[in-house]
Amino acid sequence: MEQMTYKNSGVDIDAGNKSVQLIKDAVKKTYRAEVLGDLGGFGGLFALKKYAEPVLVSGTDGVGTKLKIAFMMNKHDTIGQDAVAMCVNDILVQGAEPLFFLDYLAVGKLNPEQVAEIVGGVAAACSESGCALIGGETAEMAGFYQTGEYDVAGFAVGVVEKKNLITSSRVKVGDILIGLPSSGLHSNGFSLVRKIIFEHKKFKVTDKVDGLEKNIGEEILTPTRLYPKICLPLIKNFGNKLHGMVHITGGGFYENIPRALPKNFGAEIDANSWQVPKIFKLLQEWGNVDWHEMFRTFNCGIGMILIVDEESFDDFATHLNENYEEFYKIGRVVESGGVKIIRS
Amino acid sequence: MEQMTYKNSGVDIDAGNKSVQLIKDAVKKTYRAEVLGDLGGFGGLFALKKYAEPVLVSGTDGVGTKLKIAFMMNKHDTIGQDAVAMCVNDILVQGAEPLFFLDYLAVGKLNPEQVAEIVGGVAAACSESGCALIGGETAEMAGFYQTGEYDVAGFAVGVVEKKNLITSSRVKVGDILIGLPSSGLHSNGFSLVRKIIFEHKKFKVTDKVDGLEKNIGEEILTPTRLYPKICLPLIKNFGNKLHGMVHITGGGFYENIPRALPKNFGAEIDANSWQVPKIFKLLQEWGNVDWHEMFRTFNCGIGMILIVDEESFDDFATHLNENYEEFYKIGRVVESGGVKIIRS
Repeated sequence: MEQMTYKNSGVDIDAGNKSVQLIKDAVKKTYRAEVLGDLGGFGGLFALKKYAEPVLVSGTDGVGTKLKIAFMMNKHDTIGQDAVAMCVNDILVQGAEPLFFLDYLAVGKLNPEQVAEIVGGVAAACSESGCALIGGETAEMAGFYQTGEYDVAGFAVGVVEKKNLITSSRVKVGDILIGLPSSGLHSNGFSLVRKIIFEHKKFKVTDKVDGLEKNIGEEILTPTRLYPKICLPLIKNFGNKLHGMVHITGGGFYENIPRALPKNFGAEIDANSWQVPKIFKLLQEWGNVDWHEMFRTFNCGIGMILIVDEESFDDFATHLNENYEEFYKIGRVVESGGVKIIRS
Repeated sequence: MEQMTYKNSGVDIDAGNKSVQLIKDAVKKTYRAEVLGDLGGFGGLFALKKYAEPVLVSGTDGVGTKLKIAFMMNKHDTIGQDAVAMCVNDILVQGAEPLFFLDYLAVGKLNPEQVAEIVGGVAAACSESGCALIGGETAEMAGFYQTGEYDVAGFAVGVVEKKNLITSSRVKVGDILIGLPSSGLHSNGFSLVRKIIFEHKKFKVTDKVDGLEKNIGEEILTPTRLYPKICLPLIKNFGNKLHGMVHITGGGFYENIPRALPKNFGAEIDANSWQVPKIFKLLQEWGNVDWHEMFRTFNCGIGMILIVDEESFDDFATHLNENYEEFYKIGRVVESGGVKIIRS
């Protein structure tokens, strides 16, 4: 009888090792001075600098079915940014500086070049966020994912001095909500996006649509914006004047804004205070989606919200203007009543 | 036209919220004093205690296609232990105490009771490993995984004083290798396991086989052993006398032992020094698998190896005996020649 091997059961350790060779340099470029050791250890090593009372803040997320768009377009170099962004934006809102990141990649058939594209995107996004990519797992799961398909998830750890931790306790009635633009759909709501665009409207990813600069596929695959570059200086410079931050992730405005507010506080948002980008308007129209559902599912153009002291608003505005950062005064914290979004 | 919603596209935020309610208590039971805040924050918060030079050690892993066995048996309460074990065993070998864990769970259709079973297993394993489950993501990816199927991955962070970090520098020629038993197959090599058992031999999970106490499905689904309970006291009590540890994970003996050795050092293992468990012998025989391939793919009964000073061996043996822990003197560190496994 013929000998059975791990390789002929569909798992190729050599291909795994080849992937590691291909991603090595991109990964090393993300290293910060605190990274000890090298690739290939059992665990990733990070020497924490001196903090009086360090609080580690960690988050994990995947990119959901946005992956399907990457498969349809056979474009794998930006989905890694989505995985990084979904995690680092989550830890950022508690005032933490992202320190390091690990990725989990599960593939049907290990194609070292494809793995290198995906992880290259992860590494580039880590560099832009200032965090080191110190570990990862690439699992070849034969008969689990289709050949050429995969799932990717990430884990980020950051740190903040305990006294600087952002909790809802800073938030006061009357605080101003400043909206920072998203880069597009980010990585939420793609089951609905795909249903509207490909099932209902029967578009192809290469189709062009009036009002969108890019073709449909490129438009919706636009990677999630990384907010550390804009938000870390705000955290550093404004300290306690920054009362809170909200990452508009799964659950949209309605489920995320309350996470940053004291219990029973509410928020009033004026949806006319910014221009909802075309892609959201098209999705709303094509799918006849109720606007409440739109704001519960999508970021509708606002990926991050800053909650600031009313008196400090002008200082924040000046800082953002000086750094050529777009922003909108989108609402206020109110005494009660949940999240209310006004559209005229 | 009918309104389209996120829910009718296959993603049910309410079912997600129900899952959170179901797992809440199990998750809270894992909390240590250092955990701040509560479920529902954007990031998991962990206040690090005082260390002179803390090194954070982190690892991520999934459970591979062992998941298919859980699906075949419709048994979801132990696979979470596999995810935890694969990660904490990796960080343990560098001398780190596991502090906290996050899980990533991607499901085809969100069934809150099934999610509670899976995460319940994660939480129980976290408790046994002494680490807090401070975050997680449950992604409903409609049209991505089959209904009832899922993928799960984990991420663990531990800490060790820099001077106590275990690196290969402690290892000397002549050091003794002590093998600690595995609980079974752990979570590696399942593509080959499934090919041999279900494709080639055409067994069903409920089949009984001579020499195995449990039925085939139960035997191979046995969760990966958690080594923190046995290894943390060794790290604490023996300090520098413990020269290294090896988690026998993907790549088996041949790829993992060298990760704990200085470059160019080798190891000689006497495979007759322990009783290779029946399941490995059956897999070898059924699949006509070469023994080299067996030791490159499976743990063959040894899930963790301690590398210890020759003079301290008796002290380790006494400690292990006093704690009723099974162990085997399986080999030695040698000057060169890679990993050599002797079988008579």
